[in-house]
Amino acid sequence: MPAPYPESLSLHAERLREIPLRTLFAESRDRSFLCRDIEGIHVDASRQRLDAETWADLLRVAEQVEPARSDLFAGAPVNATENRPVLHPALRDPRPEGLVVDGVDILAEVHRQRQRMREFAESCAARWQTVVNLGIGGSDLGPRMLCEAFPRAPGAPDVRFASTLDPEELNAALHGCDADQTLFIIASKTFTTEETQRNFSAARQWLADQGVEPGEVMEHFVATTAATERAQEIGIDAQRIFPFWDGVGGRYSVWSSVGLPVVLHAGWDAFEQLLAGAHAVDEHFREAKAESNVPLMLALLMLWNHTFLGAATRAVLPYNYRLRTLPRFLQQLQMESLGKRADAEGNLQDVAAPVVWGGSANDGAHAFFQLLHQGEQAVPVDAIIAKLDLEDERERALLAQCLSQLDLLASGRTFGEVEPAAGVAAGHYVHPGDRPSTLFLMEDISPRRIGALLALFEHVTFSIAVFWGINAFDQFGVEYGKRLSRSLAEALQDSAAPAPGHTLKALLDRLRNR
Amino acid sequence: MPAPYPESLSLHAERLREIPLRTLFAESRDRSFLCRDIEGIHVDASRQRLDAETWADLLRVAEQVEPARSDLFAGAPVNATENRPVLHPALRDPRPEGLVVDGVDILAEVHRQRQRMREFAESCAARWQTVVNLGIGGSDLGPRMLCEAFPRAPGAPDVRFASTLDPEELNAALHGCDADQTLFIIASKTFTTEETQRNFSAARQWLADQGVEPGEVMEHFVATTAATERAQEIGIDAQRIFPFWDGVGGRYSVWSSVGLPVVLHAGWDAFEQLLAGAHAVDEHFREAKAESNVPLMLALLMLWNHTFLGAATRAVLPYNYRLRTLPRFLQQLQMESLGKRADAEGNLQDVAAPVVWGGSANDGAHAFFQLLHQGEQAVPVDAIIAKLDLEDERERALLAQCLSQLDLLASGRTFGEVEPAAGVAAGHYVHPGDRPSTLFLMEDISPRRIGALLALFEHVTFSIAVFWGINAFDQFGVEYGKRLSRSLAEALQDSAAPAPGHTLKALLDRLRNR
Repeated sequence: MPAPYPESLSLHAERLREIPLRTLFAESRDRSFLCRDIEGIHVDASRQRLDAETWADLLRVAEQVEPARSDLFAGAPVNATENRPVLHPALRDPRPEGLVVDGVDILAEVHRQRQRMREFAESCAARWQTVVNLGIGGSDLGPRMLCEAFPRAPGAPDVRFASTLDPEELNAALHGCDADQTLFIIASKTFTTEETQRNFSAARQWLADQGVEPGEVMEHFVATTAATERAQEIGIDAQRIFPFWDGVGGRYSVWSSVGLPVVLHAGWDAFEQLLAGAHAVDEHFREAKAESNVPLMLALLMLWNHTFLGAATRAVLPYNYRLRTLPRFLQQLQMESLGKRADAEGNLQDVAAPVVWGGSANDGAHAFFQLLHQGEQAVPVDAIIAKLDLEDERERALLAQCLSQLDLLASGRTFGEVEPAAGVAAGHYVHPGDRPSTLFLMEDISPRRIGALLALFEHVTFSIAVFWGINAFDQFGVEYGKRLSRSLAEALQDSAAPAPGHTLKALLDRLRNR
Repeated sequence: MPAPYPESLSLHAERLREIPLRTLFAESRDRSFLCRDIEGIHVDASRQRLDAETWADLLRVAEQVEPARSDLFAGAPVNATENRPVLHPALRDPRPEGLVVDGVDILAEVHRQRQRMREFAESCAARWQTVVNLGIGGSDLGPRMLCEAFPRAPGAPDVRFASTLDPEELNAALHGCDADQTLFIIASKTFTTEETQRNFSAARQWLADQGVEPGEVMEHFVATTAATERAQEIGIDAQRIFPFWDGVGGRYSVWSSVGLPVVLHAGWDAFEQLLAGAHAVDEHFREAKAESNVPLMLALLMLWNHTFLGAATRAVLPYNYRLRTLPRFLQQLQMESLGKRADAEGNLQDVAAPVVWGGSANDGAHAFFQLLHQGEQAVPVDAIIAKLDLEDERERALLAQCLSQLDLLASGRTFGEVEPAAGVAAGHYVHPGDRPSTLFLMEDISPRRIGALLALFEHVTFSIAVFWGINAFDQFGVEYGKRLSRSLAEALQDSAAPAPGHTLKALLDRLRNR
């Protein structure tokens, strides 16, 4: 159980509900107490709905993050329900050794495996034209997003992705591929994931159908997994297995061998820079005091918006095409880490975890922004924009769109300000305003910057989980459905089998009688 | 102002909060009063959280849809704030004539333009290798989604899309294109949309840079627009302008010439089948009595979930790869149509419009489903699955996943049922259940079926807007931000200009001083 929040916060929330953001800007135009700079990212939270007094009281919550934060970096089992340490910060730690977990120096092992990955990647360009990553969830979203974010290195293979059971997806990924020149990465922490194993089989079949000799088929596969023995049993050569560790959660695994597609697509230096950016934020998170600690600030603002102001969702809105999959990545990171209610003792707590959604912000301005501006519910927005050339007409216009939307969300447009067309009531033009946002203004979309951005969100997620008293690193809620679906698949084949579940009888009868 | 809802509905909501869905299934296993079939789509809403008594009372709200529904099909100005009829049903009406609006027989005009589009499309295959659609919002999402949903016809050009101001997006769309063989469609209702006009300029520049003769550049452009004169002024030949009409809203425009990319990609027959499926649902919506009317049922269930049970969001979860952009399409349709509060008189009402979000359901099962299953807020789900071959291992497994997830969301998993691992408290394994869903089980992803599905959601959206007393066809909330961004773009260039808006001064100072 976390300590109760200071009582004053509820009173601030009540008070601030009556004060428009415009007034806060007018009263104290210096809102810089909500702005920070970190690793070339300007974080502007001045449009959040709070004042300096509230911020001072929120800061008192920050100390709750100890001792979990120390434990995180020390390799202690902060993933208590699974009795595991949390090792993704270790994956980007440049020290060659010195973090001993369960008697093993995990840093030494990390660097040894990283070296293997590097050597393998360097041998690939000459051998493979196309690489297809078969993985789902954490084994898919991270590398997929980063391959979109970074340019393809000269001579790099064409890296593609397929995740789901729908055969059309793998077919699309294989379109135009030369089987002799195609490598598959089987990315699966447990090496039992149903989707990935079935796509692995389908890929073997495809290679055989395309005329690859039976004795050569398995040479077209590498594995990135924490279950190295299982991968070997299935026939993947130990030389082509790149391990990661139980303590690396799927949604935190892009820093491990799961990042292999990124190495192949963007090159080794890009991957190293990615790790370096994340490590710089690790150091900041570990060392900066609360009032200047950026992940802590953002976690406190999440607490403010969701626990105190009652926002049910938050929107992630990138303006850059290269960051188009970032909303899906952060959606997984935050909804899988926070969408739960059991505390350490298993008691269900009130946890105000939001639905995280979003998408291309420029497209959104012609679509779902209608609800952001004039809907009844206020949706906190994280807007991300990078790489601006003010001399380029389109880039300047894009930046202007971003800033004007955030201003309008915050400031609104009053009855007195609107200029209705003839015959239209003014109410249709009113924007209520007071919709909070945080702007992430990035100097560029370089690997180092993106590494910093992702680590930032990881630590925000960790911190708010501590405030809410839940474990950000387990995911019991996605496990049972997978088991249930296996017995259902059997029932779909065997019309005498009873219907599993409680609500499916009529539907199964219908499907079986087709 | 709509009539008030029957008082009994609030009482039902209170009563049903205490009754688990499991109990409803156990008490009256026949939940078929919430199941319907339409145009090869089995709509199974049995997992919605209500009983027959509640349904009977909800049905009393249905009559409120008149007279707006009659007006819609009669071409009356149901888009009252813009004083326009709503013509998208007319676009799929097979009658060659007979709907006169403002003295013009709109059906005759629709068919004349459709014939022009057909002839143009048939001339394209031999001439163009690549077609790039430049449009945003409604001029992008519909055709983009349908080009993904339908297979490419033999000999059809490669149809691509670019929507936003980020130059990287257009660059990516043009990657590998032969300029001589590339046609651009400028899709813009007003022909003033900033993104589209700037991309239009960039495309002209690209053609010139690629060596297309100045006199031939404009032959590489066609326009789909309601502003035909403006398109001509900018230099597009009248023969290559395919009009639609003011009464066709952007998000309802894929049935018009905005669907040209679909015709080019999938062929004319596919487009006709798309229209036929939608028209069949139009007829159903217009004629079926309330208790068997599928769009009305779905609208009443939205009312139930959002106005009475208080759900803040709804998730659209397709299981098929070909339907991966459907969530974005329905997000625009519903959030732009419903995300507003002003009634006909301009008075602000309580409108419980949800955030609509979602994505690939199979991917979601390894990511955001955690919150759906164990988060505090209950998110109503629309699950869509099509084209099932139970003999195919992967397709069978995919169907099993879909059904088991919906069952688990509804039924939950109690303390008594869980089997905790040693040392883990049972609370971590508990699923609260009672998360409502509607399953759309489609016989296939044929154009006719998809046409029916989209028309279904259009009429759901229209109906609930009537229940909520708002206009589903305007979008005042996305207009002012566009104006504001133009003055901001100027301020970014001119460091002496004052900062527009109320919250941007510090940020502008920073950007200008770089």
